[in-house]
Amino acid sequence: MAKNITKRSADYSQWYIDVVLQGELADYAPVKGCMVIRPNGYAVWENIQRNLDRMFKETGHVNAYFPLLIPESFLKKEAEHVEGFAPECAVVTHAGGKLLEEPLVIRPTSETIIWAMYRNWISSYRDLPLLINQWANVCRWEMRTRLFLRTTEFLWQEGHTAHATHEEAEEEAYKMVHIYKRFAEEYLAMPILAGRKTDSEKFAGALHTYCIEAMMQDGKALQSGTSHHLGQNFAKAFDVQFQDANKQLQYVHATSWGVSTRLIGGMVMTHSDDNGLVIPPKLAPLPVVFVPIWRSDEEMARVLGRARELTRDWDPLTFKIDDRDQYKPGFKFADWEVRGVPLRIDIGPRDCDNNEVVAVRRDTGVKIPLSMDGLHEKVLALLDEIQTNMFDTAKRRMDERTYTCDSYADYKNAVAAGGFFRVHWCGDAACEALMQEETKSTIRCIPFDAEDEDGVCMVCGKPSKRRVVASQSY
Amino acid sequence: MAKNITKRSADYSQWYIDVVLQGELADYAPVKGCMVIRPNGYAVWENIQRNLDRMFKETGHVNAYFPLLIPESFLKKEAEHVEGFAPECAVVTHAGGKLLEEPLVIRPTSETIIWAMYRNWISSYRDLPLLINQWANVCRWEMRTRLFLRTTEFLWQEGHTAHATHEEAEEEAYKMVHIYKRFAEEYLAMPILAGRKTDSEKFAGALHTYCIEAMMQDGKALQSGTSHHLGQNFAKAFDVQFQDANKQLQYVHATSWGVSTRLIGGMVMTHSDDNGLVIPPKLAPLPVVFVPIWRSDEEMARVLGRARELTRDWDPLTFKIDDRDQYKPGFKFADWEVRGVPLRIDIGPRDCDNNEVVAVRRDTGVKIPLSMDGLHEKVLALLDEIQTNMFDTAKRRMDERTYTCDSYADYKNAVAAGGFFRVHWCGDAACEALMQEETKSTIRCIPFDAEDEDGVCMVCGKPSKRRVVASQSY
Repeated sequence: MAKNITKRSADYSQWYIDVVLQGELADYAPVKGCMVIRPNGYAVWENIQRNLDRMFKETGHVNAYFPLLIPESFLKKEAEHVEGFAPECAVVTHAGGKLLEEPLVIRPTSETIIWAMYRNWISSYRDLPLLINQWANVCRWEMRTRLFLRTTEFLWQEGHTAHATHEEAEEEAYKMVHIYKRFAEEYLAMPILAGRKTDSEKFAGALHTYCIEAMMQDGKALQSGTSHHLGQNFAKAFDVQFQDANKQLQYVHATSWGVSTRLIGGMVMTHSDDNGLVIPPKLAPLPVVFVPIWRSDEEMARVLGRARELTRDWDPLTFKIDDRDQYKPGFKFADWEVRGVPLRIDIGPRDCDNNEVVAVRRDTGVKIPLSMDGLHEKVLALLDEIQTNMFDTAKRRMDERTYTCDSYADYKNAVAAGGFFRVHWCGDAACEALMQEETKSTIRCIPFDAEDEDGVCMVCGKPSKRRVVASQSY
Repeated sequence: MAKNITKRSADYSQWYIDVVLQGELADYAPVKGCMVIRPNGYAVWENIQRNLDRMFKETGHVNAYFPLLIPESFLKKEAEHVEGFAPECAVVTHAGGKLLEEPLVIRPTSETIIWAMYRNWISSYRDLPLLINQWANVCRWEMRTRLFLRTTEFLWQEGHTAHATHEEAEEEAYKMVHIYKRFAEEYLAMPILAGRKTDSEKFAGALHTYCIEAMMQDGKALQSGTSHHLGQNFAKAFDVQFQDANKQLQYVHATSWGVSTRLIGGMVMTHSDDNGLVIPPKLAPLPVVFVPIWRSDEEMARVLGRARELTRDWDPLTFKIDDRDQYKPGFKFADWEVRGVPLRIDIGPRDCDNNEVVAVRRDTGVKIPLSMDGLHEKVLALLDEIQTNMFDTAKRRMDERTYTCDSYADYKNAVAAGGFFRVHWCGDAACEALMQEETKSTIRCIPFDAEDEDGVCMVCGKPSKRRVVASQSY
């Protein structure tokens, strides 16, 4: 495990790839744009799944599974939707040795197949709300791909809910983007800017889209999750009506919302450093590793024995004692460092004499001598502290690099260096398009917490009532 | 929820479909041969996943994720493998609006893509064993499909392990089929016949295949899981070699093993009855439902209050109080019955007066008055008893319908009526093929516990050293 990670200052993009590959989160697959999620990365995804899934279930959602393959004609039933997704689809034309009568697309998202089913399942207001989530793989044929951030196939969850009223659907879409924010901040330790997308950035087929945006270490934004209020668009496209309490037929109101393995890319670019991965304790495949240090067989027996004794009552899935005898401690330090283990605990013969160990924090590199007495509680407290510190550090960075900007000239000079820019925008798509063309940046969102403030559009000078946040992005 | 389930005695196949559809386990999808797994069915799958996954991890396995799409050329690298799977593949020929240079198949199983990756990951004996599992969807274009039992797309897990020696791979393949047996018996309450497949029934590319077979209520066998010793076949096809401790290059030894959503079909056909689903408590989405009974608002307040008080400290995911006021108790009884809830608890005003409730077992229909004191412990004990009884009932049926048969004429007369037949077979594939052609039955396995017994092949009269088990199957 020779460490060979490009420095962030030298080449940020290459640094990211080095961290992901050497941390064994993922590997390139032999199919263009696809990746293999390796055990160290998949364990992070499992922790994301378990915790998010609990949050979904606590808010009344249930899981189901819909087919991977969607008849091409389904995609065409919602006009904006097909325009948005058809160009990215992978298409199955042959199966079982025969040409298919109708081509099937691999789901790029599942609104169409799900609403085709909801048609059979919903007939009365008593069937509503229907709150279903799916954990699944999807394919979108992207031109430029990057491990986790944008891959041809990715794993995600997609919630698809059906409601009797506009208000209920709105409440759901709003609730879910806030669940995403809470999850990202509490588990990924990734501070979030949440808000509404502009019309040009909304989901193909939605009334409007809410999003969570995070700031990476290079100051660029990463869209990390979206929640869409779909109105009655899909209900009309698939003819899904229900009888209300007054026996009137009404079209059903819909939402959909999703986060994906992209979150892992966000985690990497928020926390990792020039020595490799740094994983927040709450999502770490392995929160704690013991590295015993010895020079003789006798010392080995002693330190290993002591380490095992110390951890006898610990949950075996939360720690490991690295007893590999073919590697030296220095190799092991680098090995666990590059894999992002939050807390390393060194234990040598002298430590045993002194009834202590040395804890080494992955986030700060700080070494902390700890008495062996009550070690478990101390370790848990340290893990909490690491989790909190990682969030605080990222939050400080986001705050420091969020600028208020009132001049388009200044913006054009500054935006490529990274950061979130609070700017006035008139609401006109033409200004948005010009800005994007001239600066390779976009309006990330209209923040939920944007205050009323009279101003003038940075681009055209027309009046604006509040600031939006613009940035370059992944 | 009008109950309209065909009786088993009238039409067993239709009964199965009725039970699955009305129990809302699954629904037909608008794509030929595909199904939608509905929340009641998906929750069973989540319980299967959670428990099996724990058993995998306790035996040292980790999860990962490999791409859905496999270059067509990969499939062709292992001669038997391509012959077995190519005719069943769904093929992506276009993506991103263009014709692909090389067609991609949707994985029918992942040996080829995984061994292409293992080539990069394995170089030394220190990298072995590699014990990786994947939870994924796969597609096999089947002619005749049936919900859960055989669908074009299904969900499964596939373990793919790499070992330094033949013996270690053999030990792994053998260990995993026994984990499947234990899981099926302890959780699905489905008694298992385990053994080795004949060469004509083994996996395409394996040295040999182990399997678990269960007996459905009509006496037919259901292959419910397989574990393959792949030898060095895939290592040679993908050139995966490692340096052993003596610095010699060796080809890696492999296993693969899988179970799928087919297990849910097996569960249905093992336990359900003419009133609908019967789900074993350990896998039930909802183990307990309370049905409060009232005639007036005052009674409603009283029984609901009492039910809530009784369950205050219960885990909210393990029970539900059916407080829907638009339905009568009779409707609710039938509703929960058809959905397979293992234990119903009726509570009315008189029960409250008497400080008791009435528990109704789904497996036997027996009603049991229970004192409200210490109700939680009594309910847990009853659930255990139901789980045990379901296994015992199925085991008794399997034992009673396992016959020893020494005459091919008798066999031909009896096999269509169902059952497992312990018969002598010489080991010749020609006899096996003739039997299959003449009786639509197959050798399900050579049981692990088959004792040495001299006999003569039922078909040809040549010598045989032990009995195999033959049956018609799904």
